[in-house]
Amino acid sequence: MESMMIYMPIVMAVLGLIYMWIKKSWVMKQDAGDGKMKEISDHIYEGALAFLSAEYRLLAIFVVIVSIALASVSFIVPTTHILIVVAFIFGAFFSALAGNIGMKIATKTNVRTTQAARTSLPNALKISFGGGTVMGLGVAGLAVLGLTAFFIGFFHFFMGGVWTNTMDMTIVLETLAGFSLGAESIALFARVGGGIYTKAADVGADLVGKVEAGIPEDDPRNPATIADNVGDNVGDVAGMGADLFGSYVATVLAAMVLGNYVIKDMGGSISDAFGGIGPILLPMAIAGVGIIISIIGTMLVKISNNDAKESQVMGALNKGNITAIILVAISCYGLVTWMLPETMKMEFFGEGLQEISSMRVFYATLVGLIVGGVISAVTEYYTGLGKSPILKIVQQSSTGAGTNIIAGLATGMISTFPSVLLFAGAIWASYAFAGFYGVALAASAMMATTAMQLAIDAFGPISDNAGGIAEMSEQEPIVRERTDILDSVGNTTAATGKGFAIASAALTSLALFAAYVTFTGIDGINIFKAPVLAMLFVGGMVPVVFSALAMNAVGKAAMEMVQEVRRQFRDIPGIMEGTGKPEYDKCVAISTKASLKEMMLPGLLTIGFPLIIAFLPLAFGMEKLAIAEMLGGYMAGVTVSGVLWAIFQNNAGGAWDNAKKSFEAGVEINGEMTYKGSEAHKAAVTGDTVGDPFKDTSGPSMNILIKLTCLIGLVIAPILGGHTDAKPHGEEIKKEVKVEIKQTSGELAMATITTFKIVDGKKTSEIEKIEGTIAEIEKKAKEAGTIVSVNVLKNENEIIESKQ
Amino acid sequence: MESMMIYMPIVMAVLGLIYMWIKKSWVMKQDAGDGKMKEISDHIYEGALAFLSAEYRLLAIFVVIVSIALASVSFIVPTTHILIVVAFIFGAFFSALAGNIGMKIATKTNVRTTQAARTSLPNALKISFGGGTVMGLGVAGLAVLGLTAFFIGFFHFFMGGVWTNTMDMTIVLETLAGFSLGAESIALFARVGGGIYTKAADVGADLVGKVEAGIPEDDPRNPATIADNVGDNVGDVAGMGADLFGSYVATVLAAMVLGNYVIKDMGGSISDAFGGIGPILLPMAIAGVGIIISIIGTMLVKISNNDAKESQVMGALNKGNITAIILVAISCYGLVTWMLPETMKMEFFGEGLQEISSMRVFYATLVGLIVGGVISAVTEYYTGLGKSPILKIVQQSSTGAGTNIIAGLATGMISTFPSVLLFAGAIWASYAFAGFYGVALAASAMMATTAMQLAIDAFGPISDNAGGIAEMSEQEPIVRERTDILDSVGNTTAATGKGFAIASAALTSLALFAAYVTFTGIDGINIFKAPVLAMLFVGGMVPVVFSALAMNAVGKAAMEMVQEVRRQFRDIPGIMEGTGKPEYDKCVAISTKASLKEMMLPGLLTIGFPLIIAFLPLAFGMEKLAIAEMLGGYMAGVTVSGVLWAIFQNNAGGAWDNAKKSFEAGVEINGEMTYKGSEAHKAAVTGDTVGDPFKDTSGPSMNILIKLTCLIGLVIAPILGGHTDAKPHGEEIKKEVKVEIKQTSGELAMATITTFKIVDGKKTSEIEKIEGTIAEIEKKAKEAGTIVSVNVLKNENEIIESKQ
Repeated sequence: MESMMIYMPIVMAVLGLIYMWIKKSWVMKQDAGDGKMKEISDHIYEGALAFLSAEYRLLAIFVVIVSIALASVSFIVPTTHILIVVAFIFGAFFSALAGNIGMKIATKTNVRTTQAARTSLPNALKISFGGGTVMGLGVAGLAVLGLTAFFIGFFHFFMGGVWTNTMDMTIVLETLAGFSLGAESIALFARVGGGIYTKAADVGADLVGKVEAGIPEDDPRNPATIADNVGDNVGDVAGMGADLFGSYVATVLAAMVLGNYVIKDMGGSISDAFGGIGPILLPMAIAGVGIIISIIGTMLVKISNNDAKESQVMGALNKGNITAIILVAISCYGLVTWMLPETMKMEFFGEGLQEISSMRVFYATLVGLIVGGVISAVTEYYTGLGKSPILKIVQQSSTGAGTNIIAGLATGMISTFPSVLLFAGAIWASYAFAGFYGVALAASAMMATTAMQLAIDAFGPISDNAGGIAEMSEQEPIVRERTDILDSVGNTTAATGKGFAIASAALTSLALFAAYVTFTGIDGINIFKAPVLAMLFVGGMVPVVFSALAMNAVGKAAMEMVQEVRRQFRDIPGIMEGTGKPEYDKCVAISTKASLKEMMLPGLLTIGFPLIIAFLPLAFGMEKLAIAEMLGGYMAGVTVSGVLWAIFQNNAGGAWDNAKKSFEAGVEINGEMTYKGSEAHKAAVTGDTVGDPFKDTSGPSMNILIKLTCLIGLVIAPILGGHTDAKPHGEEIKKEVKVEIKQTSGELAMATITTFKIVDGKKTSEIEKIEGTIAEIEKKAKEAGTIVSVNVLKNENEIIESKQ
Repeated sequence: MESMMIYMPIVMAVLGLIYMWIKKSWVMKQDAGDGKMKEISDHIYEGALAFLSAEYRLLAIFVVIVSIALASVSFIVPTTHILIVVAFIFGAFFSALAGNIGMKIATKTNVRTTQAARTSLPNALKISFGGGTVMGLGVAGLAVLGLTAFFIGFFHFFMGGVWTNTMDMTIVLETLAGFSLGAESIALFARVGGGIYTKAADVGADLVGKVEAGIPEDDPRNPATIADNVGDNVGDVAGMGADLFGSYVATVLAAMVLGNYVIKDMGGSISDAFGGIGPILLPMAIAGVGIIISIIGTMLVKISNNDAKESQVMGALNKGNITAIILVAISCYGLVTWMLPETMKMEFFGEGLQEISSMRVFYATLVGLIVGGVISAVTEYYTGLGKSPILKIVQQSSTGAGTNIIAGLATGMISTFPSVLLFAGAIWASYAFAGFYGVALAASAMMATTAMQLAIDAFGPISDNAGGIAEMSEQEPIVRERTDILDSVGNTTAATGKGFAIASAALTSLALFAAYVTFTGIDGINIFKAPVLAMLFVGGMVPVVFSALAMNAVGKAAMEMVQEVRRQFRDIPGIMEGTGKPEYDKCVAISTKASLKEMMLPGLLTIGFPLIIAFLPLAFGMEKLAIAEMLGGYMAGVTVSGVLWAIFQNNAGGAWDNAKKSFEAGVEINGEMTYKGSEAHKAAVTGDTVGDPFKDTSGPSMNILIKLTCLIGLVIAPILGGHTDAKPHGEEIKKEVKVEIKQTSGELAMATITTFKIVDGKKTSEIEKIEGTIAEIEKKAKEAGTIVSVNVLKNENEIIESKQ
């Protein structure tokens, strides 16, 4: 049975996809409501599809260009195989497909949720969360299916399906990196483009509709309202899905790469029941089991009380989530002890080989699960309604927008403190338990419940849309109240989901970073070398500039939207009275076009910088390993700075948002109850305007930026010196021979041949004395290894000739 | 003459201080105006002194505590000498003294500038810039005097005033680091405390005075107006002075440390006309000459036209500044070629020893001068009135505070792009020219004109104060117009001065970082080790949290001020009619108390984190060099993130400020001229409120944070493993002996002793054969070096006993 383990993740993935299909059919069978509701929903669906197809057309061009580039490289560099192009294309395709599935189901579920909310809250939750489940399983199922299938394919292609050596496996995994690169590239554009789309529509709709025309949110008279609702799906559903799809694939891949290095550290091969690739299969197995666990988790999410409040809905979600996490911990224990050798050897940088028991790998997975849980709690603390940081921002709103903004910025900045200490602790602990393999498995364990996390994430925007449809189709107030409960819970899960996405991106990047160092075979990344330090600075700068570009993009796109909405209000007769029909599609087209245009520059920055750092010095003849180290410094700079700016922007944005929302129920400021419409509330609205691009555009993009940077590094790695260090540990890697010749007679000589063997850094020596002609001695010495010195003695004490 | 070179910098420093004294007497002799003006000026003077004496009382306690800590360490750790305590106390004292001189002259010059502005603009410039010159020369003179005097003292104490070896010199410089630590500690509190003071007073005065009561800025009826004017001196004069005093000392010190390592790389001693310490003296000589050059530069700053505009005043400043920079370049050429050996050997990490001509060191100094110039231009571009980024922010103000804030944030973020590329290029280039010695000398050359930079910087707040006094004492409008011209130029120089301060802090920190690595003797800082990487993350987080604490501190202190001003308006009868006298001193006391209280936490964060990272693992028995590497990772994290956040915050703050100022002359938005009082202007005022703590509190504090972090590392370095690698290059650093014993007869044995010498990483061997007793052989082998293996042969081919 064990030998079939390689197919287990595929089976799990297919089971997940079947369950997804069943769930999808169930959702689609639900009542989609009456004429007006359906009409609005169709508008949203068509808008979303219009964006997707425009985006995919553009991305197809991108995929073709990158494929050609990758193919050219694979012809020039012998260590890169053309199959990487195939993997890349499929990675991009699968990512797009997952986004497509998620977006379609989300836009179909929204109206069904509204309809269900007309009857009961439990039903509405069942349907909206059902849509989220479809999305989650689609992403996770396709990720595991694609990655595992390509791994099996390459394993058979390059190695004939049996273990040969770590170097061949390195080629398998390097080629597999193409799949991850494809997935992450699509994710970049989906996240950035989606983020720009959703905020351009949101800001544009609010500025003219709410502020200038004084009509409520989601009012059907606002031409940008459909674009706004499409944006929720484009940004929060498709963007988040692509992000986690990329993280999922990259994490598992990085863990596989590091698993291969565990085998290398153990002498180049191990014998286990899994064809000698247990450590490589383990991360895939965890991912596969995680799909089944996520299905169980989603089944637990339900409420029965029609009068349930936010806390009960949240409780239902938490029940499913916590159960899933506990089940993952249990399965990690089982899988780790079953699939790994009881003790392994791992190379610890600067400390040499160490014996590691499989239990320590299990502890590392626990570290990952704990980080995933704690980071959500930390995010919840800094951004949650009623928590002390939010109350402080509310207080500071009383003295105007300026102090509100300062308080929000400071909250986001302070929130980096516990988050970074948590990550630093996690890096340290999981590394101490099981090296970088431990770090990667910590990430894998955390990501195992991706399907569950996504289900929780996606149900938020679905409920938000459902509320919008209720408003636009003028339903009874009770319907909106019910969807509002779901929406409010969705806002909290959106914030904690962002925390989860950052944590996963941070750990994934570290694992990729470690894989990069091992791929290139460099000695590490020494920032005491000035060029490496310079690149650390440059890397640190990129997330900051990327964020600025994303924010400016939102500003520009929103301005175009504002002008179009103003034009429609001016030019379409009867629009304000509800007799003239707004041209929704024009606003959708503006958001679509602007977001696709504006995502180019940040994308170029992300992809261009590592390529310039790698290839410019190469063109000037710089040494490859030195370049590899510089690129490593750049990657570290992007990761550290990117994680900081991700936490800062997401939490500041989340905090402003909820500070503003606090006014809806009323807040006490200096002893007075203050509500919507007050000066303090206006200040809070300004804060939220700043926070919008922070939390929905630039902040979440940081995840992709750091992952994609590390992935590009990984794909470039073979060009920069891969395989130079691909000798397995435990083998003799150096044999030095010293020859000492005593001139005994004219023809014949006495010689001492000392052979020093260097195995794993340890030197042992062997001495052989022979008598023969100089030629015979030379031949014998050459057979023994590399001759490093030849001494010819005149007499016992004097050297007459010495070659080093 | 050359042998007396060691005293040259002292002579220059004394000359600078004499000139300062003459200039000061001249300023003090100027007319201080009539009764009301004098009264206001005295209020400001007393407020400033009150803050200083309160601050110094607090800092005295801090100095005592740190001195005791340092003294205890010097008793426990043999490589640290008790004299470091003396150096520390004097460093703190000199820094405080320099701040005191600057503050006193600034608060005396302001009223004299107002009085001079009543007659002519050229006179007003002459006096205000004269005050700035006193400040600049006081700081630079005391810095060079103190550092050089202590160096000479320690050089005689530890080495008898003659060159012995690099290890002794290391002890001299390690002890000298105490002086720098003292200076930088005071700078931290001066910058942070001053920054909180000035913004608390400013925001407090504006919120109640301008916004609530509707009275103009600097109105004498506002109780916080004196505190506001005191704040300009406390923050912009004393804070900036202490910052640059610290940078100056730290830069020269770091260059001296690296000069010592040049001597080490050249074989442990050189013979030159400067007692063999030319490379160590050079940075001090550049600093000394820089003082004289700065005096020349300040003499060139004058205008003759009474109707001169901003551009002519700016032109006069530029003339002096550019002349000074060119003169420094010329003197660097002279000093470098005179004081350094024509070719030197320098160790390049990972590349071994390289021959470096002295001309390459000169090129490195040019890099520093260019960076200083270019960073000012970059800062001017992103924050200057009429420049495109400012115009964009102005445009975005038309849609409200939210878009204004987003545009300002994005401008600050984007500005990191050219700045960081410039720094990265400078690191790379100066290192490529002359290793880390080159980086340190680049910083030294840039800092040579510190006196001139400070004169230009300090004249701004003096003119600002002069304008305030003109307003409060109700002078003719022409007086305020003249001081406004000076103030406006001062705003520009304040922004470019901040750019200069960041650049100097960045290069200084790198030099200190390099000095740290050489002090500890670690192999470099490898971020592929997980604990080092974790510390890189933690270090990256600290500047973000520090900034948040500083911003929150301003918010808290401003709130207290608001309440006090409101109370006075309410309780003091006739205050609004000008008949009741506001209690200025109460507002001064609030700012003083709040700023001193609030600077504690950021201070603790800065000093506490490196100590925890060093001593906590030490207490748990972690290996010292591993800790040193972790601390190095932390330092790198703080530096990279600190530089980014400094640029971001300073430039965003400067941009908002000037976007707001643009409305004073009127700006065109969507084709319409818009002025003060418009909605767009109100949005811009909100942006400026956010920018105030950015550019005057948290932003400038980053400089001190990164320098002090690296200095603390440097002082801790000897504890973490200093001197382990203090052997000079070119000497034999390892002798390995292998013994092979042939049992020839009962008593006597034949043995081959192979001695491997490892010199600069190269291995050579020598073989000696002897016959004697085992004891004799052993003795002989021990004399030869460290015995690494003993083989006892049974017969020719078989080893019967082998010890490794």
